[in-house]
Amino acid sequence: MTVRNIIRKSNVTLLCTTDDPVDSLEWHEKIKEDKSFDVQVLPAWRPDKAMNLEKADYLEYLARLSDVSGIKVETFSSLLEALSVRMDWFEKHGCRISDHGLEYVMYAPASEKEIEAIFAKRRSGEQVSREEELKFKTAFMLAMGKAYHKKGWVMQLHYGVKRDNNQRIFKKLGPDTGVDCINNYAPSSELADYLNALVITDELPKTIIYSLNPVDNAAIGTIIGCFQDASAVGKIQQGSAWWFNDHKAGMTEQLTSLANLGLLGNFIGMLTDSRSFLSYTRHEYFRRILCELIGGWVENGEYPADDKALEKIVKGISYNNAVRYFGFELA
Amino acid sequence: MTVRNIIRKSNVTLLCTTDDPVDSLEWHEKIKEDKSFDVQVLPAWRPDKAMNLEKADYLEYLARLSDVSGIKVETFSSLLEALSVRMDWFEKHGCRISDHGLEYVMYAPASEKEIEAIFAKRRSGEQVSREEELKFKTAFMLAMGKAYHKKGWVMQLHYGVKRDNNQRIFKKLGPDTGVDCINNYAPSSELADYLNALVITDELPKTIIYSLNPVDNAAIGTIIGCFQDASAVGKIQQGSAWWFNDHKAGMTEQLTSLANLGLLGNFIGMLTDSRSFLSYTRHEYFRRILCELIGGWVENGEYPADDKALEKIVKGISYNNAVRYFGFELA
Amino acid sequence: MTVRNIIRKSNVTLLCTTDDPVDSLEWHEKIKEDKSFDVQVLPAWRPDKAMNLEKADYLEYLARLSDVSGIKVETFSSLLEALSVRMDWFEKHGCRISDHGLEYVMYAPASEKEIEAIFAKRRSGEQVSREEELKFKTAFMLAMGKAYHKKGWVMQLHYGVKRDNNQRIFKKLGPDTGVDCINNYAPSSELADYLNALVITDELPKTIIYSLNPVDNAAIGTIIGCFQDASAVGKIQQGSAWWFNDHKAGMTEQLTSLANLGLLGNFIGMLTDSRSFLSYTRHEYFRRILCELIGGWVENGEYPADDKALEKIVKGISYNNAVRYFGFELA
Repeated sequence: MTVRNIIRKSNVTLLCTTDDPVDSLEWHEKIKEDKSFDVQVLPAWRPDKAMNLEKADYLEYLARLSDVSGIKVETFSSLLEALSVRMDWFEKHGCRISDHGLEYVMYAPASEKEIEAIFAKRRSGEQVSREEELKFKTAFMLAMGKAYHKKGWVMQLHYGVKRDNNQRIFKKLGPDTGVDCINNYAPSSELADYLNALVITDELPKTIIYSLNPVDNAAIGTIIGCFQDASAVGKIQQGSAWWFNDHKAGMTEQLTSLANLGLLGNFIGMLTDSRSFLSYTRHEYFRRILCELIGGWVENGEYPADDKALEKIVKGISYNNAVRYFGFELA
Repeated sequence: MTVRNIIRKSNVTLLCTTDDPVDSLEWHEKIKEDKSFDVQVLPAWRPDKAMNLEKADYLEYLARLSDVSGIKVETFSSLLEALSVRMDWFEKHGCRISDHGLEYVMYAPASEKEIEAIFAKRRSGEQVSREEELKFKTAFMLAMGKAYHKKGWVMQLHYGVKRDNNQRIFKKLGPDTGVDCINNYAPSSELADYLNALVITDELPKTIIYSLNPVDNAAIGTIIGCFQDASAVGKIQQGSAWWFNDHKAGMTEQLTSLANLGLLGNFIGMLTDSRSFLSYTRHEYFRRILCELIGGWVENGEYPADDKALEKIVKGISYNNAVRYFGFELA
Repeated sequence: MTVRNIIRKSNVTLLCTTDDPVDSLEWHEKIKEDKSFDVQVLPAWRPDKAMNLEKADYLEYLARLSDVSGIKVETFSSLLEALSVRMDWFEKHGCRISDHGLEYVMYAPASEKEIEAIFAKRRSGEQVSREEELKFKTAFMLAMGKAYHKKGWVMQLHYGVKRDNNQRIFKKLGPDTGVDCINNYAPSSELADYLNALVITDELPKTIIYSLNPVDNAAIGTIIGCFQDASAVGKIQQGSAWWFNDHKAGMTEQLTSLANLGLLGNFIGMLTDSRSFLSYTRHEYFRRILCELIGGWVENGEYPADDKALEKIVKGISYNNAVRYFGFELA
């Protein structure tokens, strides 16, 4: 029952951690060199701290990023340059995926000049307005999307979250201690506009969209249909039921919605919040719920009792689609 | 397998197209005179282009409307006059239904003077602000509602849509090519206020409300209950599951919600997105889902196994209620 | 079939009415002294009229409150003082519960000085702006929450309602005549911020959250989890399916959502809209739906077939949890 044995017994081929751009990835190097463990462990790129300019420690973060990247981050464009250096480093360590935690997917476009002014204001120690924050984050996310497209990375958008709601607990225990909730403000129009701003110049990367609010299932299901293209099978995905929705009812709703609005057979399956070594049984739970759902359709005469087609769908969602989608090199 | 034969074999009694106010309706005249086809084909009034003043081609549209109506459209009040002329023309051709495609049902009241100023601004070639757009559209929709009430027409409100989201495809293929999504901003308070503004002077027409967002089912179900009156059975209707929701789960949800919040037996049934000749099987699909749902309630002891009552409900929703509601003259 | 006999035959132990702070509670005194009826009838505190400063009759209400309390209400702080006097009166009559009807749970914090200025403006006969209204109501609700915490009362928040939508009926029949609907604007972030503002000084009372919009189930389920503490079992509750949702589908959805996101076994069960003497069968309906739902899980292997545990859960939700939660003194 060691961590490594649990991972081995769960038949894990490859797993991705999530890592900050300033992370050295030294432990990824060490585990790769370790011949006694043959599960691939790759980094994933999570640059939230480089985006959240409203946070008190933003300037400290920029200083660390400057140090690690060797690029002095004094402008928005040098911020992107520094991140680009780090993305190359992550790529060298096998990274193929990014991840973003967003309040909601906003779209507040602004000129380069305006963004540089907002960044300069924040660098001078001032706080930015809410409007400036949204403009800056939009510019940041557009730049990231384009960079992922160039590298062939997958962009994951996690949104609909309000964190650290209980300040009494926050003061005692610090951030991310479980007092988080669904943020139900998430205009689908801005999500669509953001993706459109990337597709218009043909720079939309493979994208996976997760909302914490199950109410968003239908809106997401219609949006992903607007941005598919022939460059990848199921290029724009609705992510699997996530966090608070990671149960039988939530998974069943997400799968049913996706089957109604998109092409379930191209779904890359269960993905998120399963990075920790005790959560692999959750994947088995997901696969059983998937099979019960599809089996119910077959028994009810709503899908053909075609074993070959069913096998392809289930194996695809359970494993093969993810391998194809992310483009990992498996042994 | 000709178009006409498919329509005949589907036992269609009457069908309505949707038509722009500037349409001559000449083809409606021709098909009426054609003795070889005895299905009634009537126009439906869809004046979206007369409302959407934010569009680039709005002034050209006004010019066409001026030509066709013989009324020179130079003010908001002359716009309404021109539309009134065209409504008479539509009525002469058997029109009993209108249809509107709305982002959401807005309610931003303004004085006549203000509306005329907004219209004059747009006519001068200027763009209007978002606030002006909402005020203008509110005034337009209030005027239309009152006109429908006068004529005894049904008002259909389709909303919750964001269109042409992928500008890359738009540039290649043009508008309405399938890259549309759910717009989840649709304040129920404004929908209620809009209907109230019509009822207050007793000018609320028969109205059918469709949201593209299935999440709106409950809000709509409660709103229709606020505006019923004795002038028509089921005067304010929730429209059947529409477009992206036009599947077993979506239909079942709409029917269940309506049965919980309103009077299912007065529902006029499947209506929209079935104008094209290949979609009549969709009505059969709807009727089977309806019967499966109601039958399940009976088997579960939740509705009496009263064949006569059940027959009335099912025949009503499938055919009779619509005949009564729209007031068509059937052969 | 008298009112009292219906209540007796429904095995009612205790019931709470809802009462305005200016109510004398004389009838509560009389029914208490009446030896021929042994069901406890207690008041509940519903101070909506003291909060709704946008209403036309607000100043008249303040005058009545001044009279009844003996405190001249000339400032916001004297308003709170007058309410405090009345709360003591209610407490003396056994009150343990408050109830609030809110458009949505807003959080627009402002300084004491600002609130006093808004109150003074309204007292002078002027109308307040929407922003001022939201600030005033936030201050009011914060003060009430703190007062309930001090007294050990339960705070009930009912929201998601838009009332009196049909002004034609309103003019004929007056307020609260059934023409109400779901208000779908209810930002979960403000609800969380409101509760946080109370917890931060450790003044959050036991709270029950009810939204009229069933779409809010998941957001509420995640919010209640953020504010639990050891001071009461299931301190923050999601209220049972209410008003328009008070049917099999609505109850099942609320129970399922709660079971997925919280601890169903601590649920205090059916509570609201059952004050009237004809609605007790609704509790039996609720209990049967609860048992059918849990029984289904057991039959499906999703919950252990452990009779003892099941009995504790069902009896708890049906009766025992509410007794423990409210702290009533039962005979």
